[in-house]
Amino acid sequence: MSRNILLRIAYDGTEFNGYQLQAKGERTVQGVLEAALSEMHGREVRVHAAGRTDSGVHADAQYVNFRSDLDTVPPEKFVLALNRYLPPDLKGQESREVPEGFHARFSAKRRSYRYYVLVAPMPVPKYRNYAYRISRMPDLAALNRDASALLGEHDFTTFAAAGEGTESKVREVYEARFTWEPPFVVFSITANGFLWKQVRSTVGTILGRDRDRRDGVAGTPGGVKLPTVEELLTARDRSLAGPTAPPQGLFLTDVTYDV
Amino acid sequence: MSRNILLRIAYDGTEFNGYQLQAKGERTVQGVLEAALSEMHGREVRVHAAGRTDSGVHADAQYVNFRSDLDTVPPEKFVLALNRYLPPDLKGQESREVPEGFHARFSAKRRSYRYYVLVAPMPVPKYRNYAYRISRMPDLAALNRDASALLGEHDFTTFAAAGEGTESKVREVYEARFTWEPPFVVFSITANGFLWKQVRSTVGTILGRDRDRRDGVAGTPGGVKLPTVEELLTARDRSLAGPTAPPQGLFLTDVTYDV
Repeated sequence: MSRNILLRIAYDGTEFNGYQLQAKGERTVQGVLEAALSEMHGREVRVHAAGRTDSGVHADAQYVNFRSDLDTVPPEKFVLALNRYLPPDLKGQESREVPEGFHARFSAKRRSYRYYVLVAPMPVPKYRNYAYRISRMPDLAALNRDASALLGEHDFTTFAAAGEGTESKVREVYEARFTWEPPFVVFSITANGFLWKQVRSTVGTILGRDRDRRDGVAGTPGGVKLPTVEELLTARDRSLAGPTAPPQGLFLTDVTYDV
Repeated sequence: MSRNILLRIAYDGTEFNGYQLQAKGERTVQGVLEAALSEMHGREVRVHAAGRTDSGVHADAQYVNFRSDLDTVPPEKFVLALNRYLPPDLKGQESREVPEGFHARFSAKRRSYRYYVLVAPMPVPKYRNYAYRISRMPDLAALNRDASALLGEHDFTTFAAAGEGTESKVREVYEARFTWEPPFVVFSITANGFLWKQVRSTVGTILGRDRDRRDGVAGTPGGVKLPTVEELLTARDRSLAGPTAPPQGLFLTDVTYDV
């Protein structure tokens, strides 16, 4: 009997060249995971993930599904057996059986990310791979006014990286806010889906607006008027977005399914 | 003019072979720091630290002092200049001038450590180098009853590692408690000084007592009566201590000086 198994995994993205399998044999999450599952099954096993993450990006909760014919292992115990084949920076967290037609990517309803911004005057070694550091505390209320403009259904072309193809750039954002969780300012966002580098581009743009306001570029007497997030969205122009925030601050934290 | 500079540093101990300089040229905190300071000064610079940390142990706040004749750099700006010579896993946090006779080790009044115990059913990749994992939530009240027995002046021979020589094993503990800071149980301890591996041995022993209570080894009907922390201290016998908790959960978090 062959079963469809849904697996929740967590990984530290530092030593991975992103999620997706690479032709050149570079170390990727998918590659290491499929090698472990294949070894465990004694045959080639392919996985489907909820989404791809870039090099250096982490996951507290990424989901993958795959077919298994290991009838001797109960679905809930699968994760324990698999973890013996996985390295310390990639570990299964939970496993269960899902219906035949379930697909980790196409069945996903919502995805959540958190982006960690460390506020510290000096680099903090233990956070170097898990946060993006800025020196000064930003104006949290202003960040949240910007974030609220993201809520609802929008064309996010302005915040998409190049190479996205011709698919729709419309996504629906359910939650977007900045919270102060010392020593981090954390950006949390939930949507039905994300464009490539959308979260990092959004964080970089909103933090850039905060810097510009403080440095008097805009919003202060004599400053230049910079476009608001609403105006940036309406423009649908990538060149208007701020710098893309670095990958190490980003964590995929949740994916919601109906089953 | 030569000045005595006190520097606060932070490091991720994962890639260091401990704090202390090694003859064999292994990578140590002291070695990397002295190389950076020597390069900056154009002559050999030696540092004195508040205390040594073992391989894999981290520091949020370790202190070192050294003599500097770089008169062009204000003491408070020293840290910025130095950080250009240091790697990402070792960075200065603050610098200032201290009196001639000040010594980071001998002038220290109190030292504080925190030990992070991750409570999670599965290994969590992003915490693998920064916490010791246990599967089940311990009895926090019982841990704190044990911890309170450490307060005050005691001979800590039972919790010292071998090779300590013949100096006094008496230390005074000012604070010792366990707190639940999800997903971590954190052991915080402050004392005038610590014996080699004392914190890790203490954590290992107290967690071991919690496991034994739960598993019915002691303290439950039919269980064997295990010695209390008071009895362990009085015995002054290393062989009675539990296992030494692993290094990656331990952080040197503060050192107190009068100046």
